[in-house]
Amino acid sequence: MTDTQTPLDYADAHIDDSIERLFALMRIPSISTDPTYADACARAAEVLAYELTTLGFDARVAQTPGHPMVVAHHDGPEGKRGPHALFYGHYDVQPVDPLELWKRDPFDPAIETREDGARQIVGRGASDDKGQLRTFVEACRAWKETAGRLPCKVTILFEGEEESGSTSLEPFLHEHAAELKADFALICDTLMWDTETPGLTIGLRGMAGGQVTVRGPKRDLHSGLYGGPARNPIQLLSGILAELKDTDGRVTLAGFYDGVPEISETVRASWDALGFDDGEFLAEIGLSVPAGEAGYDVLEQVWARPTAEINGIWGGYTGEGFKTVIPAEAHAKISFRLVGTQDPGQVWAAFEEHVRSRLPADCSAEFESRGPGSPAVSVASDSAPLTATRKALDAEWGKSALIGCGGGIPVVTSIAQILEMDTVMVGFALADDNIHSPNEKYDLKSFHKGIRSWVRILAEVGAMAKA
Amino acid sequence: MTDTQTPLDYADAHIDDSIERLFALMRIPSISTDPTYADACARAAEVLAYELTTLGFDARVAQTPGHPMVVAHHDGPEGKRGPHALFYGHYDVQPVDPLELWKRDPFDPAIETREDGARQIVGRGASDDKGQLRTFVEACRAWKETAGRLPCKVTILFEGEEESGSTSLEPFLHEHAAELKADFALICDTLMWDTETPGLTIGLRGMAGGQVTVRGPKRDLHSGLYGGPARNPIQLLSGILAELKDTDGRVTLAGFYDGVPEISETVRASWDALGFDDGEFLAEIGLSVPAGEAGYDVLEQVWARPTAEINGIWGGYTGEGFKTVIPAEAHAKISFRLVGTQDPGQVWAAFEEHVRSRLPADCSAEFESRGPGSPAVSVASDSAPLTATRKALDAEWGKSALIGCGGGIPVVTSIAQILEMDTVMVGFALADDNIHSPNEKYDLKSFHKGIRSWVRILAEVGAMAKA
Repeated sequence: MTDTQTPLDYADAHIDDSIERLFALMRIPSISTDPTYADACARAAEVLAYELTTLGFDARVAQTPGHPMVVAHHDGPEGKRGPHALFYGHYDVQPVDPLELWKRDPFDPAIETREDGARQIVGRGASDDKGQLRTFVEACRAWKETAGRLPCKVTILFEGEEESGSTSLEPFLHEHAAELKADFALICDTLMWDTETPGLTIGLRGMAGGQVTVRGPKRDLHSGLYGGPARNPIQLLSGILAELKDTDGRVTLAGFYDGVPEISETVRASWDALGFDDGEFLAEIGLSVPAGEAGYDVLEQVWARPTAEINGIWGGYTGEGFKTVIPAEAHAKISFRLVGTQDPGQVWAAFEEHVRSRLPADCSAEFESRGPGSPAVSVASDSAPLTATRKALDAEWGKSALIGCGGGIPVVTSIAQILEMDTVMVGFALADDNIHSPNEKYDLKSFHKGIRSWVRILAEVGAMAKA
Repeated sequence: MTDTQTPLDYADAHIDDSIERLFALMRIPSISTDPTYADACARAAEVLAYELTTLGFDARVAQTPGHPMVVAHHDGPEGKRGPHALFYGHYDVQPVDPLELWKRDPFDPAIETREDGARQIVGRGASDDKGQLRTFVEACRAWKETAGRLPCKVTILFEGEEESGSTSLEPFLHEHAAELKADFALICDTLMWDTETPGLTIGLRGMAGGQVTVRGPKRDLHSGLYGGPARNPIQLLSGILAELKDTDGRVTLAGFYDGVPEISETVRASWDALGFDDGEFLAEIGLSVPAGEAGYDVLEQVWARPTAEINGIWGGYTGEGFKTVIPAEAHAKISFRLVGTQDPGQVWAAFEEHVRSRLPADCSAEFESRGPGSPAVSVASDSAPLTATRKALDAEWGKSALIGCGGGIPVVTSIAQILEMDTVMVGFALADDNIHSPNEKYDLKSFHKGIRSWVRILAEVGAMAKA
């Protein structure tokens, strides 16, 4: 029987070093969506590959047309045989604007102690996904330093474009399918159910999205001299976007609900049993009036219902002071979260039609789809790797929960489609981690017990082989 | 009888020097709405005051809580007696964004020859209002250099906050009313009817405006994890702004049309006689579908009907790439053009109510009104100064037109209310001057014949005294 206590003790004894290594990664501003930070992305990949080499991995930086991948291999105790897990994480992070809302430099991480005594790792990427991926790397280190090797065979894939559409991911999986193929995948990029209960995510919403530019006058106009007869693209776009949802919060696109399954009574009952409090959920984000689809509670809206969201809008004069202008164009970034078998391409096409059908004859629209999008994902809740993982989590935390997730992780779809593997999604993030927002944080407890969880999961995966 | 030919000849002979002096003024980036350019505004005021001193004016820079004024006095031939005109212009300019649409540095002016052979002065302020105010200054110079004096008594007031709400103007007029009081005012900040016909503007739309911020969640949210139940402020703001106008292009604010007079048959007939082509007007700006209030043609919409315009909108992620965020807030800049006796304060209050009444209980709005606004202005078309000015314009151009203007010039209202003076609005700008837009220009012909027009107007004003 594998000795799990020794690596667990090692992880406890060296937690400060683990934090320092996380800080070093967080100091690299690897914002993948902004070309300004391409060098930082490359640097993050280089340091991760080097570090994995020091942990006994056969690791390399693999170039793509976008930001590079890190690919690393570590044999299990039985050499090339035995259960083989592909671990996926991403080293890129979201942009940091609005910068003025951060309490400290987003790329100068620190530990801060909250009023309730909880210690928090703060900074961009603390949670999503540098903190999460590091829980796995530090677990590998604990095994390497105490047992000299990992208890199972592991391949690691770190992506650098997760926050910017994963453009290079699918071609890369196709090209390196033989090298990346394993028995199943592990991903650490999801939420806990609550601070005491780790989550195994068995459903993810898919996504379609992109940008629209609406054009009216051929140049910016003085709103005094032209206001009235000249079409105002901001007004036009506002009207088009306002009509994306009806007063019941339902998306109005033609055919949008094709492929959206009704929630089964079983699932609805199991979610009801979680004791989720809609009011508390909304209060935590400063809201009290549910804005989602009528007839569904919050968990259902986030885990099982699709939505349309405007992620950004801009047009005209947005600086200090005022400028009496009718702009030539206005822009918005839109995304749709998908469930069931909704087709991302059809949804985006329906959005384009929604816009085009509302344009006056003298206006035009230009669309830039954010890649092909991703359909929703469902994971079987009784697979061997999921069962093994749940056993490890229960040992560490005393409990675990099978949950849904409103966000999407396109790689899960890609892994299923291209590598034909199931994925076990384990995450230690919390809903209040401010991921994608100013003042992102990761509970030190998530980080520490996350490392311990992976120490146990690696052992349980190794034990699968012997079963 | 005053010799007008000699100063006209002087203006012709020295037109290149006049252009050079305009260029020097245009090179100063006096963008009043952006505090970054406060020094440039101060410099523009200083050089104008100095120049007026060289032309025999008793000139000074007068400080205000905002950007300074230039005040200058020149006696007429009869000393302190005789007709006395107050000339108003503004040395500040609009911002230059989007900078990438300019064909050259907006503050590096030049003469460019268009395909049709027309020569254009290009750069920010070429027309609005540096080019226009300089036509007057150069006319003064022509008189000074040839006759040694102006043919009438002139006070000059150059403002530096016209493009940013004229915050300091009214207090300044109150404080210096005795010094600025004249028989009537002259303003050069309006359009010609067409390239061959100078315009005497007898009506201006008023304005109310400001900025609104709509707040929802207390922080930016991940649109996957919160999309559905969480209110999206961009979506909320879009809906609120979409409802500013109905499908007939009428503004929906409560009481908005109080004080809006119907257009008289006489006025409608006189405008019809101008032979204005709605289709051409729209085609020139790349449009073909009239967007204004149903039942009114373009001239009526711009000269006699109010409107609501969204001048800017922003919220969420607006950079390169994508960010799946539900932002905490969204913003817009709005302005209303007013006619008749519409009350700017009431209109803005109705807008605030329009927004507030559409907010869910957990969202809030913050408003920043752009000063007190200005009511619309009508000028008597048979006053002595207007008649004298029209006589001069007819002599120079062979014709002139009494026109309306969709824009507002708040100083005209202020002059009427505080100094109790009528204002004659003469301008040589053209509708295609791209004022407030990239690639602003001023026809060299406007500039040259504008100088000649003022030479003649000054003589006619002087002649009023002798009548």
